[in-house]
Amino acid sequence: MMHPEFETYLRRSDLAEEAVRKISDLAVARKLRRNELLLSAGEICRHKVFVVSGLLHTFNISAGGTQHILQFAPENSWTLDVESYDRQIPSQVSIGAVEPSTILCWQKKDFDMLLAEVPQLKKFAEGLIARNIHYSRKRILISLSATPEEKYEDFIQTFPDYLARLPLRMIAAYLGISIKTLTRIRHAQLQR
Amino acid sequence: MMHPEFETYLRRSDLAEEAVRKISDLAVARKLRRNELLLSAGEICRHKVFVVSGLLHTFNISAGGTQHILQFAPENSWTLDVESYDRQIPSQVSIGAVEPSTILCWQKKDFDMLLAEVPQLKKFAEGLIARNIHYSRKRILISLSATPEEKYEDFIQTFPDYLARLPLRMIAAYLGISIKTLTRIRHAQLQR
Repeated sequence: MMHPEFETYLRRSDLAEEAVRKISDLAVARKLRRNELLLSAGEICRHKVFVVSGLLHTFNISAGGTQHILQFAPENSWTLDVESYDRQIPSQVSIGAVEPSTILCWQKKDFDMLLAEVPQLKKFAEGLIARNIHYSRKRILISLSATPEEKYEDFIQTFPDYLARLPLRMIAAYLGISIKTLTRIRHAQLQR
Repeated sequence: MMHPEFETYLRRSDLAEEAVRKISDLAVARKLRRNELLLSAGEICRHKVFVVSGLLHTFNISAGGTQHILQFAPENSWTLDVESYDRQIPSQVSIGAVEPSTILCWQKKDFDMLLAEVPQLKKFAEGLIARNIHYSRKRILISLSATPEEKYEDFIQTFPDYLARLPLRMIAAYLGISIKTLTRIRHAQLQR
């Protein structure tokens, strides 16, 4: 199977053509409608997922019905529930499509084999993991120390192109602030 | 150099004797007084650190003077500022001793060499990284969705032995709640 966008992405990361071919060959493409779920809380996350186009989000719904968003995954990024995938235990979160999306999926056994057999992919994956750790650390620090205004400011600096793609309630659910507070912050900004 | 506690820790993780020797030989022991800083915000984190005894914490101080705690590192755990260490850029956080502590330090170049030459250490380090990612993810989810009561409850479940070792203000600084709120929660619990 050819997956041209994904192959371009891998080549940009300096993977050799043979590695690109091997990785791409094991991917299965899938389309998701807007709001379609890829993983529901309680299921086991069995696939590594690359987003070719569209936008996914990882979230949970608390007892009171409030949505909390752990992560957005736009085109050219990866997503999964890492603990459920690594340990093959039920996921505490769901993954769904915010926009109509095209994704590539690898079964865990296939991706594990690729990691073992393609040193370039292993190295590339380690780089992704490091960035993930750095970002998580920054996000924890922000959640502890930043005001709602600073959280929003950081969000628009970090993800400038998300603003036009996401409803306000999702940005609020990602920042851990209420829609009311977010609306107030945006209103104050517009008045500056 | 012999570092018996550390070597016992590595052997428990199934590292072979030759690997244990090689890793231990490159460690330099250091003692920290209570409140002594190992790394100050703005410095570059140049060492991988294992805590033999005592308790360290990673924190930052916001503009208003409030301390926020990213991580505690008790005996038999590792600590560093991961982004500063990986990229050798100035750290945004400080690391200091909450209790008088004994630590082992490896220079980055030595530890990188060990990771490249000791496959068992590489595998062991990957396990630590995975646990770190799972825990960070859980912490972000809790910071988004849990009430202060739930945050405190999770803390005492996850770290039962920290309660007696930490001043309340540090627990509050880790949970991202005020001391006033924390005191109210503990008071309510005692009355149950």
